[in-house]
Amino acid sequence: MSTTQTNQIEILKSPTTKINEVDFENLSFGSVFTDHLFECDFKNGEWQKPIIKPYAPFLLDPSSRVFHYGQAIFEGMKAYKDTQETVWLFRPDENYKRFNKSAVRMAMPEVPEEIFMNGLNQLLQLDEAWIKKGSGNAMYIRPFMIATGKGVIANPSNEYKFMIILSPVTSYYAGEVKVLIAEHFSRAANGGIGAAKAAGNYAAQFYPTNLANEAGFQQVIWTDDATHTKLEEAGTMNVFFVINNVLLTAPVSERILDGVTRKTLIDLATSENINVEVRPVLVSDLVEAAKNGTLQEIFGAGTAAVVSQISGFSYQDIYYELPKIDNSVAAHLKNKLTNIQNKLEEDKFGWTVKV
Amino acid sequence: MSTTQTNQIEILKSPTTKINEVDFENLSFGSVFTDHLFECDFKNGEWQKPIIKPYAPFLLDPSSRVFHYGQAIFEGMKAYKDTQETVWLFRPDENYKRFNKSAVRMAMPEVPEEIFMNGLNQLLQLDEAWIKKGSGNAMYIRPFMIATGKGVIANPSNEYKFMIILSPVTSYYAGEVKVLIAEHFSRAANGGIGAAKAAGNYAAQFYPTNLANEAGFQQVIWTDDATHTKLEEAGTMNVFFVINNVLLTAPVSERILDGVTRKTLIDLATSENINVEVRPVLVSDLVEAAKNGTLQEIFGAGTAAVVSQISGFSYQDIYYELPKIDNSVAAHLKNKLTNIQNKLEEDKFGWTVKV
Ligand SMILES: Cc1ncc(COP(=O)(O)O)c(C=O)c1O
Ligand SMILES: Cc1ncc(COP(=O)(O)O)c(C=O)c1O
Repeated sequence: MSTTQTNQIEILKSPTTKINEVDFENLSFGSVFTDHLFECDFKNGEWQKPIIKPYAPFLLDPSSRVFHYGQAIFEGMKAYKDTQETVWLFRPDENYKRFNKSAVRMAMPEVPEEIFMNGLNQLLQLDEAWIKKGSGNAMYIRPFMIATGKGVIANPSNEYKFMIILSPVTSYYAGEVKVLIAEHFSRAANGGIGAAKAAGNYAAQFYPTNLANEAGFQQVIWTDDATHTKLEEAGTMNVFFVINNVLLTAPVSERILDGVTRKTLIDLATSENINVEVRPVLVSDLVEAAKNGTLQEIFGAGTAAVVSQISGFSYQDIYYELPKIDNSVAAHLKNKLTNIQNKLEEDKFGWTVKV
Repeated sequence: MSTTQTNQIEILKSPTTKINEVDFENLSFGSVFTDHLFECDFKNGEWQKPIIKPYAPFLLDPSSRVFHYGQAIFEGMKAYKDTQETVWLFRPDENYKRFNKSAVRMAMPEVPEEIFMNGLNQLLQLDEAWIKKGSGNAMYIRPFMIATGKGVIANPSNEYKFMIILSPVTSYYAGEVKVLIAEHFSRAANGGIGAAKAAGNYAAQFYPTNLANEAGFQQVIWTDDATHTKLEEAGTMNVFFVINNVLLTAPVSERILDGVTRKTLIDLATSENINVEVRPVLVSDLVEAAKNGTLQEIFGAGTAAVVSQISGFSYQDIYYELPKIDNSVAAHLKNKLTNIQNKLEEDKFGWTVKV
C-alpha cells in the first residue's frame, strides 16, 4: 500500500462514537454499523476523490437508477482480530476480483484496486476498536456499489456510488437447518446474472424462501431452472454433500456464485487428503444416496454462515433426515478454516492478509 | 374516488415551480420531473399517512435493503390531455394489478387501491399544467416501491417506500431499430421473476444490450433461457410478428411481462378482424419466414415506445432485412391505439379513465 495513494483519502472523523451503546455479546447479524464509512463516487467517466466519513444516511434523487433498474452489486467479507490484537483479512483479493466481475456483468464501472483496498484498510484501521477477538467474532465488511444517475429510462447509469460499511458480528448460529430442494422456483437463468453478486438475485429468492419457511424449512437448495435436476446452491451459500466418503460440490457456472469459502474448503479438504469431486450433483444422486444409506452430510459454505450443517432435505414431499455423525467433514473443515482465519493455526496457503 | 379518502392525503405544495425552465418541445425521455411527488411509507406492518410534496431527493441509510438485496418494483403508465383539456389515464387498473403482482413475487407488501389510485389522481391534478395536449405528448407516470429497512442480512425488509413521480414526455422516436436475437444471454429464468416489473430484471439486460449496441443493434429480442429457441420479448416491449398475414405473439408466462400494450393490441387487432395467434413463436419460424418471403413485420409494443417497428434482425451472424411495407399492421394498430388514448376516436372498450 503506497503512502501517497493512502493519503489521497480524505478523512472526516466522527466527533462522537456509538461503540459504548453496542452490546457485543448479543449482535444480530448485519444490524449494527461502526462509526465510519468509506465512499467514492463515479462521475464524468471517472472515480472522484474517496472519503471516509461518519456513517450516516445520504440523499438520493427519486429517479436514481438503482431504484428503477437495479444496478446494484455487493461483496461480503470478514476481518478478524488475533490474540495479539492484529487485524487480518481473509483472501480480500478474491472479493475484489469478484466485485469487479459483478460490475462488468451489471454494466457498472470497475473499481480500481487502490480505491477498494486502501479504502478497506483505512476504514478498518479507523474503526479498529469495533473488531473483537475471540472465536466467532469478526467484522463483517460490506463493499457495495449503486447506480445514482437520474432518469427513468432503462439504460445504464453514468453515475455510481461505491461504499464500504462495517458491521461487527458474532458467530452466526442458524439453529437446525432443514432444506427444501427447489422443484419450481429458481434463482438464476442460463445466460443470466446468477454468477454476479447482484442485488436483484437476492430479492428474487425471498418469496419462494418465505414459502419454504412456512412449510418448516429454513433454506432452499436451488436447482437449475431448465430441468430442476441439478443441485446448485443455497441463498447465500454454496452447498457440499458427503456421499460414500466423497466430498461433492457442483462446478461454478454462470448460474452459480463462485464462493470464496467454497474454493477454500475444496483446497483445505484436498490438502487433508479428503476425496473431493467437483461435478454436477443431481437431485437423483442425493435421493438415491439418502435411500441406500450412503448420504452422510450436506452443508452450506459462505462468508456469513461459515459452514452450516444441514439436518435433512425435502424433495417431492418426502423428507429425508440425515444421520447424526460424530466426526463430520463439515465440523472438521469449519474448525480448520476458522483456525486459519483467526491465526490459531499456520496459514500455509497465504490466505490471510494483515491490515 | 371518495372525498374522505382523498382528503387523507396530506398536501405540501411547492412554493415555486420549475415548469418555465422546461423546453417541452425537446424532452429527453424520463429525464424531467414535475414539481411534486406522491409518497407513502410502510412500517410496523401498515401503510402510513400518504403525502404529496415537492419533488426532492430523500435520505436513505447506507444499509437500506434496496441497495443490497434489490427489493424494488415499478410501473410505467401514461396520462393524456385531450383537446378539451381533460386528462385521461389508459387502463390504470391493469398497472395497479400488475404492480401488486410484482410486489407479491418480490415479497413486498401490496399497495392498497385507494392509496395507489388517489395518489395518482391527486398528483396528476396538482401538476396538471405539466401535461401537454397534442400528438405524442403525454405524462409518463412512474409508481415504484423500494425496501427501506436497514440491515445487511438477506431477508425481506419490514419497511418500504411507495412513490409516484411524473415525467412529461413527447413521442419516443428510437430511429431505425435493428434487433439481435439472443443466443446466449437471457433476461429471465423458469421459476424466476421475469413476469414481475422488478428493478433487477433491467440491470441484467444492460451488459448484453451494450454488446448488441456495439455490434450495431438497438435492441435484443430475448429467447427462453433453456433452449434459446422461443422468441420472448425485448427490453421494455413485448414483440409481435406478422407472418403470412397473421399477427403472432408469444403467450405470457412466468418469464414474460404481461404487457398492457400487448393485450390492448391483441384486442384491437381482433376487433379489426386481423388474424391473431397467441402461441410460442420459434426463432426457426422467423428465420424460415424471412427466407421464404412470408415475414412481413416485427414490432415491439410497450407504454414508453408505444409501437416500435423493427427493420431487421440478426441471428447466427446473418442479418435479415424486413420488407418496407406501406399499410403495415404496426402503423395501423399504433394509430388506432393513440387515437383512443388521445380521445380522438371512440373508446368502445372502456379503456380510458378520466382523472
Ligand atoms: C448466492 C451466494 N452463493 C454463495 C455464497 C458464498 O460465497 P462466499 O463464500 O464468497 O461468501 C454467497 C455469499 O457470498 C452468495 O451470496
Ligand atoms: C420487460 C417488459 N416487457 C414489456 C413491457 C411492455 O408493457 P406495457 O405495455 O404494460 O408497458 C415492458 C414495459 O412496461 C417491460 O418492462
